[in-house]
Amino acid sequence: MNLHIITTGGTIDKIYFDAKSDYQVGEPVIGELLDSMGAQFPYTVESAMRKDSLELTDEDRALIRESAERCAEQQVLITHGTDGMVQTGKALKGIEGKTIVLTGALQPAAFKGSDAIFNIGCALGALQAASPGVYISMNGQLFEIDNVHKNLEKNRFETIDGKD
Amino acid sequence: MNLHIITTGGTIDKIYFDAKSDYQVGEPVIGELLDSMGAQFPYTVESAMRKDSLELTDEDRALIRESAERCAEQQVLITHGTDGMVQTGKALKGIEGKTIVLTGALQPAAFKGSDAIFNIGCALGALQAASPGVYISMNGQLFEIDNVHKNLEKNRFETIDGKD
Amino acid sequence: MNLHIITTGGTIDKIYFDAKSDYQVGEPVIGELLDSMGAQFPYTVESAMRKDSLELTDEDRALIRESAERCAEQQVLITHGTDGMVQTGKALKGIEGKTIVLTGALQPAAFKGSDAIFNIGCALGALQAASPGVYISMNGQLFEIDNVHKNLEKNRFETIDGKD
Amino acid sequence: MNLHIITTGGTIDKIYFDAKSDYQVGEPVIGELLDSMGAQFPYTVESAMRKDSLELTDEDRALIRESAERCAEQQVLITHGTDGMVQTGKALKGIEGKTIVLTGALQPAAFKGSDAIFNIGCALGALQAASPGVYISMNGQLFEIDNVHKNLEKNRFETIDGKD
Repeated sequence: MNLHIITTGGTIDKIYFDAKSDYQVGEPVIGELLDSMGAQFPYTVESAMRKDSLELTDEDRALIRESAERCAEQQVLITHGTDGMVQTGKALKGIEGKTIVLTGALQPAAFKGSDAIFNIGCALGALQAASPGVYISMNGQLFEIDNVHKNLEKNRFETIDGKD
Repeated sequence: MNLHIITTGGTIDKIYFDAKSDYQVGEPVIGELLDSMGAQFPYTVESAMRKDSLELTDEDRALIRESAERCAEQQVLITHGTDGMVQTGKALKGIEGKTIVLTGALQPAAFKGSDAIFNIGCALGALQAASPGVYISMNGQLFEIDNVHKNLEKNRFETIDGKD
Repeated sequence: MNLHIITTGGTIDKIYFDAKSDYQVGEPVIGELLDSMGAQFPYTVESAMRKDSLELTDEDRALIRESAERCAEQQVLITHGTDGMVQTGKALKGIEGKTIVLTGALQPAAFKGSDAIFNIGCALGALQAASPGVYISMNGQLFEIDNVHKNLEKNRFETIDGKD
Repeated sequence: MNLHIITTGGTIDKIYFDAKSDYQVGEPVIGELLDSMGAQFPYTVESAMRKDSLELTDEDRALIRESAERCAEQQVLITHGTDGMVQTGKALKGIEGKTIVLTGALQPAAFKGSDAIFNIGCALGALQAASPGVYISMNGQLFEIDNVHKNLEKNRFETIDGKD
């Protein structure tokens, strides 16, 4: 696999800054996580921005799309906040010959029991097997970008048509 | 996805028994891990045996194959010790119409920093995207069963032909 | 030991609320932590408030003092935010016959690698051995309330006179 | 506090060696744990042996006693297997002017949810407040060496006379 990773912020990268008594997007965790899991494939990481996904603008999404189009790799992993993930995914449709998977976490990677490493793992498995296109990997499920939404009440991702 | 899970033992399920001052294969962890990660798809779990993979016999592998053939589901996840994983994978070749992914862990799921949940995530992503066949998911990589071996010296899985 | 625990909020109890995309003081963690560590001694828990310690008022500190004075137990553990911990400790001086230890955490208990459980452990050891008085237990050290301050730059507690 | 630490092995230091498919006493964890918790006081660490406490001999206990007597520090922390902890503690009685606390863990420090860091914290709090003598710190309680035993059935430490 030849993988390009684009980080955009979101809960997955949130850490606690005791000095600020606050909780903010920090350094991207993805590189460290992959190393700790013994990942051996080559990959490049690009930090596009460090924002909560609800704060992403159309310019931000255009920037993410450009990064995905421009990179040499055929597989693109995007770590992203969960609230705006579907919207960004839709802005990535139609890029020829690339398999793009967006993922993130409901609990920051810094937390005990975080879903970050599980969701990243699922995204990697999909990236190596799926046909070109745009997908979301959350709560252990792989979704095509046209058939997924975040169920805010239940705090999870689901298909729109109800079929798993 | 319609998933059938077969657990066989291995490091992934090892826990510490203080009363025995020893470390043995315990209850399968997979169900609890999937629930904690918010997995919503239906799945069935079958505990075939609780062995170190080096102790698996041909009868054990035949039992695992039978379970994979017999189950109604098209996707089969097998948690397994890492030492004998390739051997069991080879014994599963030729089952029509099923996508079978074997995974496990180098560090028990009970350990801080375990690769268990990452490898399981990767396996799930592959199960939802890959064509029917037999695969191994370890250290973030998806391997076809005919092109993988465990590099004992470096304690990781690699392709035989050197191509990722 | 007969222990009374008063929780006041602070970083130790902060959790992530994905629905609010924010990080706030949640339910006190102390009871659950003690149970998970196999603590067998009897104790009572009282949640006085759920505030960042910089937001505590003189009325809040008077309330905490009253709870410490009023309780039947001789040992009192107070979980508290770290910024205002010394100030609250000073407001507890002069309560006859009670050993009072304030502790907290720089990283929420929910975080991997949090100092919460370590600081609580240290506070409990001190509570069972120290003479009546008011103390702070942070970064593995036991401080008398008249000789401690939080070094904001280095994010740790130290004696004022430089003697450990 | 001036602290000398003697490590002897035990569950607290057990790690999993995937290459050996086995679980053995590894490098002492105490130094790394204290650093991660921000401990600032000076301390020295001495690894006396790396054994399961049931395998300790009278010679081993004599060696531990000699180390405790010989060191310059007045506070001595001993990390030890839980099964033989009381026996070793008794062999340390009568050393003038020293506060000695033995601790360990029921779950290795490498495990999620391990009691290691909690027990070490409790021991440190006791070391800084208790009168000279020999103590055990386990499951959040501080025990005098003449009034403690390990309840094997319930897998915890208790006083002999039933008084907490």
